[in-house]
Amino acid sequence: MEILITNDDGIYSEGIYALATSLRKMGNITVVAPDTQRSAVGHAITIADPLRVVTANRNGKFFGYAASGTPADCVKLGIKSIMKKRPDLVVSGINLGGNQGYNILYSGTVSGATEGALLGIPSLAISLDTFTKPDFSAAAAFSVKLAGMVKKRRLPPGTLLNVNLPNLPAARIKGVRVTNQSRTSFNDWFDKRRDPHGNTYYWMTGDFKPKDADRASDLNALRGGYVSVTPIQFDLTDYKFVPELENWELKL
Amino acid sequence: MEILITNDDGIYSEGIYALATSLRKMGNITVVAPDTQRSAVGHAITIADPLRVVTANRNGKFFGYAASGTPADCVKLGIKSIMKKRPDLVVSGINLGGNQGYNILYSGTVSGATEGALLGIPSLAISLDTFTKPDFSAAAAFSVKLAGMVKKRRLPPGTLLNVNLPNLPAARIKGVRVTNQSRTSFNDWFDKRRDPHGNTYYWMTGDFKPKDADRASDLNALRGGYVSVTPIQFDLTDYKFVPELENWELKL
Repeated sequence: MEILITNDDGIYSEGIYALATSLRKMGNITVVAPDTQRSAVGHAITIADPLRVVTANRNGKFFGYAASGTPADCVKLGIKSIMKKRPDLVVSGINLGGNQGYNILYSGTVSGATEGALLGIPSLAISLDTFTKPDFSAAAAFSVKLAGMVKKRRLPPGTLLNVNLPNLPAARIKGVRVTNQSRTSFNDWFDKRRDPHGNTYYWMTGDFKPKDADRASDLNALRGGYVSVTPIQFDLTDYKFVPELENWELKL
Repeated sequence: MEILITNDDGIYSEGIYALATSLRKMGNITVVAPDTQRSAVGHAITIADPLRVVTANRNGKFFGYAASGTPADCVKLGIKSIMKKRPDLVVSGINLGGNQGYNILYSGTVSGATEGALLGIPSLAISLDTFTKPDFSAAAAFSVKLAGMVKKRRLPPGTLLNVNLPNLPAARIKGVRVTNQSRTSFNDWFDKRRDPHGNTYYWMTGDFKPKDADRASDLNALRGGYVSVTPIQFDLTDYKFVPELENWELKL
C-alpha cells in the first residue's frame, strides 16, 4: 500500500510519529504535514499565498515533508505534487484531543482525511481523547488494523472514517463501536483583555461538558470506554427539509 | 429583527455593503466581518492568537466591526461579545463567487452562516456566481425577502440556507429553485516555481468545469439561470454505511 500521512498538530508532534512508525508495516509511507501546529483550521486551504515545503528529519533520519499550509493543503500537495504514485490510503493523526460531534467541523485532523476522501482516496482521521499524558499505542495499532480492513472491504466513495480512542492501553479499552456524530460542541466564549498599551483584545476560550442521550453517538462510546468509529460524508443537503422549503414558494 | 451580518471577502468589500444596506429595512443590523479577505478559510477559528476588533466606517459613517479573525470568529464575537441582544438572523455575504457542491466545505461565507446555525440562530449564506462585474441588486433584494420568509416560516434548528444567484438583474433571472448540493468541486493543482533566491515554492491554482447530471443540484440551477437555495445541515454521519461497517466486526 502507498499511504499518505498528515495531521494538524504539526510534523514534529509525537502523534504523527507514532502513527507513521506503525503504518510502515502496511507499505510505503509518505508524511506531508504542517510545519507547525494548525489546530482548528477547519477545511481551510491556502490560495492567496505560496506554500513552502522542506524535508523534515526525526531522530537524525528523513521523516517527511513539512509544509507551510493546512492539513488540507498538505494532502493536496502530497497527492498532486510530492508522491510519485497516487496513495491507496490517507491517514490523518494521531491528534491530541477528541474530534466528536460538531467539533469535527473545526478539526484540522478530520479535514486532512476529508481532503483525501474528496480526492477519491479511502481516508481515516485518528484522534486520542486527551490533551495530556497521551498513550498512542492503542491508536497506532488500531490504525494498522483499520488500514488492512479498509483495503479488504473498501469504503464508499466520498466517505471517511472518523476514529476516536480513549486514552488507555488497548487492554483497558472495552471495544470498538460504530457510532454517529453527536449533536454536541464546545461551549466557547471570549476573554476580553487589555494589552500593555491599553488596547482591547479578545481571546477565545471554552469548555466541553456536553450531554448527549444518544447511546449510539461518538461521545457516549468514548465516555463508556470504547473506541468510536463514525463514517462521515460531505453531502450536507438537509433532504428532510427540502419538501417543506419547496412549499415556501420562493420568488425573486 | 436583530440581524448579524458577516462575510469572508472582508468588511470593506462591496458585497457586504450592498447586503447591509438592503437588510436595514428588516430591523437593526450589526456588521462584524474580517478586516481583510479571508476566502477559503473553511470553518477555521482562531484559538492560538488574540483577536482584535476595531470599528469600521464606510462613506464617512460607522458601518460595523472589523475583526482580525475568520468569518466563524466574527459570528462568535458578534453573538457572544459585541451584540447586546441575541440576533434573530445571521446573514453571510454577498460573496464574490458561487459556493456550490463540495466547494462549500472550503467556503468562509458558508462557514459564517454555519456558525450561526450551530449557535441556534437561523442563518443564510448568500453568494453571487461571478468574480467580475458583480450586480448585487438581485442578491440584496432576495436576501430581504428570505429574511422575511425565515422569520415567518422558521428553519429547523441546525439547518441553514445556502443561496447562490446568477450574476444577472432580477428581471433576467428565471426563478428560484430548491436544490441539493452537487457532487462537484474545483479541480486544483500546484504551480511549482522558483523564487528570486533559488528556493522552490508551490502555488495552488485550478479551474471549475464540473459536470453534474442531477437536474436538482445547485450547479444546474445556476447554469440554467435560476437562483439555487440549498438547505444544509451538519450531521455528517453516513447513516447508509453504518450497517455495513457494523459487519466489519472491528476489534482492537
